[in-house]
Amino acid sequence: MIQLPRLPRLTHRRAAPGTAPGTLHPREQRVQQIELRLMCFGRETLEERNLGSVDELPAVAELVRPGFPGAVWLDVVGLHDVELLAAVGRCFGLHPLALEDVANLGQRPKVEPYGEHLFIVLDHLHAGDQAFAVEQISLFLLPGLVITFQEVPGDPFAPVRERIRRGGNRLRTLGADYLAYALIDSVVDHFFPVLESFGERIETLEEELVDRPEPAVLEHIYRLRRELLMMRRIAWPERDVLSTLYRDELPLIGPETQVFLRDCHDHAVRALEILETYRELAGSMLDVYLSSLSHRMNEVMKVLTIIATIFIPLTFIAGVYGMNFARMPELHWRWGYPASLGMMAVVAAALVYYFRRKGWF
Amino acid sequence: MIQLPRLPRLTHRRAAPGTAPGTLHPREQRVQQIELRLMCFGRETLEERNLGSVDELPAVAELVRPGFPGAVWLDVVGLHDVELLAAVGRCFGLHPLALEDVANLGQRPKVEPYGEHLFIVLDHLHAGDQAFAVEQISLFLLPGLVITFQEVPGDPFAPVRERIRRGGNRLRTLGADYLAYALIDSVVDHFFPVLESFGERIETLEEELVDRPEPAVLEHIYRLRRELLMMRRIAWPERDVLSTLYRDELPLIGPETQVFLRDCHDHAVRALEILETYRELAGSMLDVYLSSLSHRMNEVMKVLTIIATIFIPLTFIAGVYGMNFARMPELHWRWGYPASLGMMAVVAAALVYYFRRKGWF
Amino acid sequence: MIQLPRLPRLTHRRAAPGTAPGTLHPREQRVQQIELRLMCFGRETLEERNLGSVDELPAVAELVRPGFPGAVWLDVVGLHDVELLAAVGRCFGLHPLALEDVANLGQRPKVEPYGEHLFIVLDHLHAGDQAFAVEQISLFLLPGLVITFQEVPGDPFAPVRERIRRGGNRLRTLGADYLAYALIDSVVDHFFPVLESFGERIETLEEELVDRPEPAVLEHIYRLRRELLMMRRIAWPERDVLSTLYRDELPLIGPETQVFLRDCHDHAVRALEILETYRELAGSMLDVYLSSLSHRMNEVMKVLTIIATIFIPLTFIAGVYGMNFARMPELHWRWGYPASLGMMAVVAAALVYYFRRKGWF
Amino acid sequence: MIQLPRLPRLTHRRAAPGTAPGTLHPREQRVQQIELRLMCFGRETLEERNLGSVDELPAVAELVRPGFPGAVWLDVVGLHDVELLAAVGRCFGLHPLALEDVANLGQRPKVEPYGEHLFIVLDHLHAGDQAFAVEQISLFLLPGLVITFQEVPGDPFAPVRERIRRGGNRLRTLGADYLAYALIDSVVDHFFPVLESFGERIETLEEELVDRPEPAVLEHIYRLRRELLMMRRIAWPERDVLSTLYRDELPLIGPETQVFLRDCHDHAVRALEILETYRELAGSMLDVYLSSLSHRMNEVMKVLTIIATIFIPLTFIAGVYGMNFARMPELHWRWGYPASLGMMAVVAAALVYYFRRKGWF
Amino acid sequence: MIQLPRLPRLTHRRAAPGTAPGTLHPREQRVQQIELRLMCFGRETLEERNLGSVDELPAVAELVRPGFPGAVWLDVVGLHDVELLAAVGRCFGLHPLALEDVANLGQRPKVEPYGEHLFIVLDHLHAGDQAFAVEQISLFLLPGLVITFQEVPGDPFAPVRERIRRGGNRLRTLGADYLAYALIDSVVDHFFPVLESFGERIETLEEELVDRPEPAVLEHIYRLRRELLMMRRIAWPERDVLSTLYRDELPLIGPETQVFLRDCHDHAVRALEILETYRELAGSMLDVYLSSLSHRMNEVMKVLTIIATIFIPLTFIAGVYGMNFARMPELHWRWGYPASLGMMAVVAAALVYYFRRKGWF
Repeated sequence: MIQLPRLPRLTHRRAAPGTAPGTLHPREQRVQQIELRLMCFGRETLEERNLGSVDELPAVAELVRPGFPGAVWLDVVGLHDVELLAAVGRCFGLHPLALEDVANLGQRPKVEPYGEHLFIVLDHLHAGDQAFAVEQISLFLLPGLVITFQEVPGDPFAPVRERIRRGGNRLRTLGADYLAYALIDSVVDHFFPVLESFGERIETLEEELVDRPEPAVLEHIYRLRRELLMMRRIAWPERDVLSTLYRDELPLIGPETQVFLRDCHDHAVRALEILETYRELAGSMLDVYLSSLSHRMNEVMKVLTIIATIFIPLTFIAGVYGMNFARMPELHWRWGYPASLGMMAVVAAALVYYFRRKGWF
Repeated sequence: MIQLPRLPRLTHRRAAPGTAPGTLHPREQRVQQIELRLMCFGRETLEERNLGSVDELPAVAELVRPGFPGAVWLDVVGLHDVELLAAVGRCFGLHPLALEDVANLGQRPKVEPYGEHLFIVLDHLHAGDQAFAVEQISLFLLPGLVITFQEVPGDPFAPVRERIRRGGNRLRTLGADYLAYALIDSVVDHFFPVLESFGERIETLEEELVDRPEPAVLEHIYRLRRELLMMRRIAWPERDVLSTLYRDELPLIGPETQVFLRDCHDHAVRALEILETYRELAGSMLDVYLSSLSHRMNEVMKVLTIIATIFIPLTFIAGVYGMNFARMPELHWRWGYPASLGMMAVVAAALVYYFRRKGWF
Repeated sequence: MIQLPRLPRLTHRRAAPGTAPGTLHPREQRVQQIELRLMCFGRETLEERNLGSVDELPAVAELVRPGFPGAVWLDVVGLHDVELLAAVGRCFGLHPLALEDVANLGQRPKVEPYGEHLFIVLDHLHAGDQAFAVEQISLFLLPGLVITFQEVPGDPFAPVRERIRRGGNRLRTLGADYLAYALIDSVVDHFFPVLESFGERIETLEEELVDRPEPAVLEHIYRLRRELLMMRRIAWPERDVLSTLYRDELPLIGPETQVFLRDCHDHAVRALEILETYRELAGSMLDVYLSSLSHRMNEVMKVLTIIATIFIPLTFIAGVYGMNFARMPELHWRWGYPASLGMMAVVAAALVYYFRRKGWF
Repeated sequence: MIQLPRLPRLTHRRAAPGTAPGTLHPREQRVQQIELRLMCFGRETLEERNLGSVDELPAVAELVRPGFPGAVWLDVVGLHDVELLAAVGRCFGLHPLALEDVANLGQRPKVEPYGEHLFIVLDHLHAGDQAFAVEQISLFLLPGLVITFQEVPGDPFAPVRERIRRGGNRLRTLGADYLAYALIDSVVDHFFPVLESFGERIETLEEELVDRPEPAVLEHIYRLRRELLMMRRIAWPERDVLSTLYRDELPLIGPETQVFLRDCHDHAVRALEILETYRELAGSMLDVYLSSLSHRMNEVMKVLTIIATIFIPLTFIAGVYGMNFARMPELHWRWGYPASLGMMAVVAAALVYYFRRKGWF
Repeated sequence: MIQLPRLPRLTHRRAAPGTAPGTLHPREQRVQQIELRLMCFGRETLEERNLGSVDELPAVAELVRPGFPGAVWLDVVGLHDVELLAAVGRCFGLHPLALEDVANLGQRPKVEPYGEHLFIVLDHLHAGDQAFAVEQISLFLLPGLVITFQEVPGDPFAPVRERIRRGGNRLRTLGADYLAYALIDSVVDHFFPVLESFGERIETLEEELVDRPEPAVLEHIYRLRRELLMMRRIAWPERDVLSTLYRDELPLIGPETQVFLRDCHDHAVRALEILETYRELAGSMLDVYLSSLSHRMNEVMKVLTIIATIFIPLTFIAGVYGMNFARMPELHWRWGYPASLGMMAVVAAALVYYFRRKGWF
């Protein structure tokens, strides 16, 4: 009995219907200690440290200089402390509806302009044992400042952090919008390892499909379809986010960064196209599975039919000469027995010939 | 024999074709007494009472002050009294076509601007024993005034009412458009419990699918698909309503409220995406069901074929030596009987070997 | 043998390809006598009579007063007299292409502005024994004048006529555009009885599907799908007609009437949504039908397999001891016969146990 | 063994990839002699003759008078003479790319404005024994001049030619654009006989489906689907051509002709709707076919199961009393034989009762 | 056991997620020696040579004269030398993101304007043994200059090169945009040989489908569907590229070239339509395959049922008279034996008659 993976529960349980919008609800605690990682950098300067408490936030706010080459990046890991979220929101003037979406996980990827700032929700895919796990990444883009919120420490942003540290690249010389792009790009790039693992599973399934059309294969196809479906639910709106970012003339995003966002959008489209191809392949594989089941059944039936159809008449002949009638002249003929065996051989040969001509074996 | 749920009858029986538009037809009575609940509130003030009769309506009309922070909310529960509906319509200048839609249940969710006022129809989903029941909610937005019509008392608006009473929030300080938003939002929020129950049913079905592919499972899948179809018929136009409300620049809806409506629209889109995923999963489950039926049939056929194919030739051999021919030399051989048994064993072993090589067991 | 309903023949046989456009071809005669019903009404006045002949048409043309509250309505029933059609066309300046469409039945619903007048084709559905019959209704809207053409007398317009006679309503006080709306609305309203009959058939089929999956059910599903398909071919363009009428700013249609047309459009959309739901349900039912066939087959096969698999080995044993070898010591054992019966019982019990463990019964 | 119709080969073999555009390649010769039919007409005048050679073309060019009521129509039948095509092109200033499309058959229907002239490609359907054959019609519209190219003489334009000869109609009084419309209209009109033949085949198939679900029916459905698919590939772009012609404000097409093109577009849309309905019906028929196969199999299995299940136990009983044990007391009972027959009857009756209760017969 | 073709691996392995955009990664080496082929031509002049090293690039840059009839074409074959790519990019001011796409194979076809230059990615299909192999072609269009990058020497551009050498055609007299068109056109033209091979495979499959519905056919259909899917993933964006090139008013592309690009776009659309038709045919073939499997099974079952159903009752009768009861009067009747045989004949005849009436043979 093969266990199907559970549907990712809809347990990003929302507030009860009718609750006031913008209300922050405490999340289950998934990190031990909320981290507030600060990076503040310009062309030549770099300051990196973890904030000790919320009280340092106003000092951070003062570091932000919109026109400056470089940017300030505040990365919050862990979402269970409602107070802390509210404090961040107050300090940087984030819209309560946006903050509610940060805390209420299970949002769909989206970009929402709120007057002064841009609010972006993305889903980061962790390739794991089974397909993928989803982590909601929230990102605020303000002039000269990027604030990100992650659920767990496993960090999709590590390579970006590394590039900032290394310096001597666009990250250090362009502004906050380029930083935001770099972060978004690293999220989109994580689609591809997941797709590769899907591709490998499809290849494996294709082989099993031919070699052993077992119900386990069917389970795998179903599971695959379901996971592709769920990834699609993430990838489509994520593409829309990127399309909005590079097409709409948003005031916070400079033309130089737009070119990079177009490139990133292109990656998302490519991921989607691969995804859709896989979905169609999964559908085709199901058809092949059903057809090979049918074909196997045909084979089984043919064997049964050939054996039964040949021996049933023979058994009947034997039965006739096993009857106990007093007067059965054949029984006393000299060649009666060999003749009966011969008759059986003729019947069998005729049937074999008939099946052969039908192309059954 | 499993009983399928009845198609929700099309018994919101419309007037005979050709009847004059705007005619009000009496509805079946679903509440004992029509209630007219009035809430009139500002930042600091709150008046809440049930109107005794239609005669108090002009007094209500006088309470409405468009520019005022706060709003007047008249909530009518029960639709069977045509006279009362007409009186409300006359008093607040509601368009007869809109009033007809209030009374003629079974409207699709829609938003219609009628000069002075905005008319919105929504479908409220009550999560019940089986999937959901639908209640039509009609809402008029006028300057400073919201009028709602419900079929039955079970109240999707209770939490909003509670928030108004508590005070100290946006509901009290923003105008009638925000009140309308809050009411709409509470209707949209009720999609999610229904979707959660669908999700649970799908999970249960997936398990049953694997453990016991009974026809009952098939019935459940059909029922599920049908209910998803009907919910979809509600959710799509409801999303369109929200899309119109936040995108079109309707004069009655302020920019501040539009931001909240955008958020609400986002919830509706998310609900729809979940719905569509479920629909695809239900389709996949049917394929899995059919395939496991086929597989089971294969298993049954194999058992039959193996048993029959082994024993039929053996029975034939036994039949031959049961013949009563006078001259059957084998019958008199010393080792005739053991030899015949041995021959049978050889035949049986050969067939078993053949089936094993075919991978049948 | 169940007879499928014939495809509605494509016998609205068009003129031979290449015929000049605007040519009028005589239709088969479906009414005994062409009727020319005239209604001419204002707020207080009403003149209603049947025209005796084509010669009275110029007098009718003189009755038309564009700005007047009220309108002139000429309703032509029966289309076989090409001369008469041409006369009407000449008298009121109707475009020859439009007149050709009036005469050449089988047009798709459409709205075409021809300079001075608006030409509208609609399909009226008569709910009959089987699904529906289609009648083409052609309508010309001119300033102050509506001309309608019907194939047969069965009158979708009777209630409108009645409302005009009763008077004291919008029909009498608004102009020709409102009259046109009222006529179109009464055509659209006739979708709903047809849809209700479809709904009832689906409910009946759902029950039969579960109780008796006979091929007759299959025929019914096919028939249903086909009829839904054909209705859809009418309903989609009809919706487009209404969408054009209320959205495009056509000079002949006043803003007041546009509100009513929007309402009518809404009804058409609702009808379409119900239709599409039914189409999906019909598809689902077919899946259920196929699956229950498969399940039944499984049941039949199991019975066969159980019986055959139990008795075939037993028969073999009996066959062995029916052999006539001279030396079969068992035959002479004291307990040989009971022992053989016991052996059979053991084999049978073992097989029954095996099947039980497999969950076959 | 039923032969499927071959896929229309892709042998409109294009030039090798990379060949210069505008190159004319000789076509296989399908007519004995290329014909150059000239018609030059005004309101009162008509000149009709076949050109003897290319040398007369300049004289034709001089006949063209743009503003003139009436037009010049040059109809070229046969495409194998590259030189001739080039000469026509040079004489009237046709674009080399357009000329290449004339010669390279297998173009999709399209309309392309080339500065001075309009180039239109259409596919003419000849209803033949099997579905239809396709002939590419190329049409150039210049001021006062229409040039058409046909592959073979079988003439879709005969009725138009006839109407020109008869005179006294729009063709003679309107210009070249109306002539072009009339030619296009006669091509589109030829869709309907083809669709009628499809309709008849569907009706025949529906009957055969019920009476004799043979594999031949399956072949026919496949063939039908394929042909519908190929016709669709022609009809969709043809509709687009007409949509472009009547919607875009092309300078060569007058407003009066646009009204007629709209009508023609409407015919094309209607043809497409019928086509799509047929496609869906063909899909439904396949489902019905598969289901009736399944149902037949069920019937066969039931017969086998009933017979086998009744007689196998009886044969077993007979086998038991055919054993040769020395001590089988029943064999010597007085009523042993009738009792055994009675037992068999009881078993048979019980099984029959069981099957009846299961509703198997 | 038929081996399915492997899914083209996703091994255009991208840089690790989060890598800086515009980073060039060394590719696996697929050519021995990177070639830099230069063609520089005007109306009368032609210079063609292979560059020895990157150092000659500045000299090439000086050859470029934007307004000049003719163009400079630099064709780079082989992509493994990151340094060389970077040098080309620096010399001609190519955008780093575009260069990254040149090096990171597996891009989707696209066109991207980067200020001064236009960057186009296309997929060239090599028709090979199995369907096709894909090669990414990157093309930069600058004023007076075209730079192309190919993976391997197998040259889709050979015919264009030849036409340039021959001279006296548009290639020599028009500018770089026409050269770019000619190159793109030769890539699009390669779709058709691939489609022809698909067409031939479909025709072969259709025959096999009818003659021998073997599982190998199923494998071929699956393989076909998969390859069509992959070709579609290339063809759709390629069409979009052409649509952008001819519709958008890109400053680098003159109006004369746009006409040619429109023609090329038309070819791409035609290829897509053929592709979609093939996809639908492949789906239909699968249905036919499944149905003929079902039909074959029916045939097998009928043979089994007829034989078994006829002989099982006969064998039973023989069994009865093979019983050893002491008192079986029939056994001693004079005509007992012939009577029993007669009875068997009657039973057999009745069953045969029954099956005939059922139309089973």
